[in-house]
Amino acid sequence: MSLKEDGPSVAIVGVTGAVGQEFLSVLSDRDFPYRSLKLLASKRSAGKTLTYENRNYTVEELSENSFDDVDIALFSAGGSISKKFGPIAAEKGTIVVDNSSAFRMDEGVPLVIPEVNPEAMEGIKVKSGKGALIANPNCSTIICLMAATPLHRRANVMRMVVSTYQAASGAGAAAMEELELQTREVLEGKEPTCNIFKQQYAFNLFSHNAPVLPNGYNEEEMKLVKETRKIWNNMNVKVTATCIRVPVMRAHAESVNLQFESPLDEDTAREILRNAPGVVVIDDRAANSFPTPLQVSNKDDVAVGRIRQDVSQDGNYGLDIFVCGDQIRKGAALNAVQIAELLL
Amino acid sequence: MSLKEDGPSVAIVGVTGAVGQEFLSVLSDRDFPYRSLKLLASKRSAGKTLTYENRNYTVEELSENSFDDVDIALFSAGGSISKKFGPIAAEKGTIVVDNSSAFRMDEGVPLVIPEVNPEAMEGIKVKSGKGALIANPNCSTIICLMAATPLHRRANVMRMVVSTYQAASGAGAAAMEELELQTREVLEGKEPTCNIFKQQYAFNLFSHNAPVLPNGYNEEEMKLVKETRKIWNNMNVKVTATCIRVPVMRAHAESVNLQFESPLDEDTAREILRNAPGVVVIDDRAANSFPTPLQVSNKDDVAVGRIRQDVSQDGNYGLDIFVCGDQIRKGAALNAVQIAELLL
Repeated sequence: MSLKEDGPSVAIVGVTGAVGQEFLSVLSDRDFPYRSLKLLASKRSAGKTLTYENRNYTVEELSENSFDDVDIALFSAGGSISKKFGPIAAEKGTIVVDNSSAFRMDEGVPLVIPEVNPEAMEGIKVKSGKGALIANPNCSTIICLMAATPLHRRANVMRMVVSTYQAASGAGAAAMEELELQTREVLEGKEPTCNIFKQQYAFNLFSHNAPVLPNGYNEEEMKLVKETRKIWNNMNVKVTATCIRVPVMRAHAESVNLQFESPLDEDTAREILRNAPGVVVIDDRAANSFPTPLQVSNKDDVAVGRIRQDVSQDGNYGLDIFVCGDQIRKGAALNAVQIAELLL
Repeated sequence: MSLKEDGPSVAIVGVTGAVGQEFLSVLSDRDFPYRSLKLLASKRSAGKTLTYENRNYTVEELSENSFDDVDIALFSAGGSISKKFGPIAAEKGTIVVDNSSAFRMDEGVPLVIPEVNPEAMEGIKVKSGKGALIANPNCSTIICLMAATPLHRRANVMRMVVSTYQAASGAGAAAMEELELQTREVLEGKEPTCNIFKQQYAFNLFSHNAPVLPNGYNEEEMKLVKETRKIWNNMNVKVTATCIRVPVMRAHAESVNLQFESPLDEDTAREILRNAPGVVVIDDRAANSFPTPLQVSNKDDVAVGRIRQDVSQDGNYGLDIFVCGDQIRKGAALNAVQIAELLL
């Protein structure tokens, strides 16, 4: 990030959270130009001093007046904060990039992965005088579609069966701390502390903690189903998902089975993925070297491997792939900052 | 296990391994009748004394002469030991229940899950004077089919997409120790020791370590594909699988997507599973309570939950389920002992 007189004024809402902190680090890594920076959080964190790029900032309490003269606001403070303050900010001419699920499915709110559907936010620019809401998709959707979209463009995905292996970070910094604490406790033969999750997480795994809907899917799973349709602008694509939390810190993995309308052989698929922006292929069968969450932690690229023709489908109409991506980075902060870059 | 004059003479091959030890504990739990017990292992372990049910046994070195007067031998000492000594034992009139993959796909060797296809071993009995080889399926196959078979019987599974979450125990006791050691090391900020696996396992996950075949599937995955066909005696069933190791100690989880020939609604499926032997349903949506590996560890039953109509399939022709089972117990030792019980 660098101070530039003609850059936008930027605000970060929820700066003290895991994603909020990552916003700062990604903006800095990518040398995002800005005229001024405002760090916003809840009353509890207001008054704290944060040092960023050799300057001290005082964290301010988020209020209705926070967005006067803010061009771009990156929100990651939970759905209810977004619901309340997102429209207020947009009304004042701020372009809000929101990491919560508050507006994702709202008509008129673009849901954007910059490598996938930048056209959805066409016409939204800073200094146009017009505010807007733009939604960041859910982490599992972003990571899945980074790999599935280049294949979809070639052969048209008809149906997708996804099983996730989701990290602690998706539930925030406190969940990561709980996983570490629990692991220490279990190794010492103690009862594990369960504050964030209601059951043992260390050396265990469980169905995603999102509420379960009447159809038996949890909200996390239905995000994959619905967001895929909106991002691909294709109401016919069929998706099912099973979302599971595994004792991993900050990167998600996903096993994805694809059914195509047109045949697509695995060599072509591998080549397409090698050339896809933001994707790295790790697929060395002889060395048994494939993507792992640890490899992609703190990395920008989504890693894809285990690319193979599905033996349960006739012809070349099916593929199985395995995808890993950093949940905090491409799954949240990086994607939001990339959206902000498109606004300039 | 109990000494009975008219019980069979039993040998355990590979008694010092994780599954070998579990054979003893399951035999005891189920009060399996036996006339005599022989504990066999490699030269390295020969001479050790093991106490079992208040008797001392000396571990003997496995040799060609080990099977004289042995009615039932439970093998779990790896494929090459089975390949060498299994046929020798069978030749001598011993009925071998083999936990390795050595004979699973051999024509004439029954591959048996007692709740699923006991008929495959019809005619094989102890004291018939005739030896035989019977194969125990792979752990992931057993756990998957314990849940899928009752549904298959009702609605005929056409295709199954499986993603696994496999525990350390599948790679033996040393792998479980390595996971624990690595976890301690990582928490202390040290480099993790990688002897059994070539990469960090603690707080990570990776594609199953089995060799990858020319079609891109690893051997573990192809076991699910091929063993399902043999056990169901149905060459038409289509299966694809992605097998992943997760940092969990001794129970596997599997996300299973099912496509049926006939419609099957989720309530009927739940009822069928509630009545299935060896299966327990944990499926409380309101409480977000579903099977976890920890819940089934050291337990006999396979747990099934997340039973829901697949939204990616029309009508009631699809279901998603999530299954957990103890890898050492039902995935190996218990299933083998249940096979032995059928021999009596």
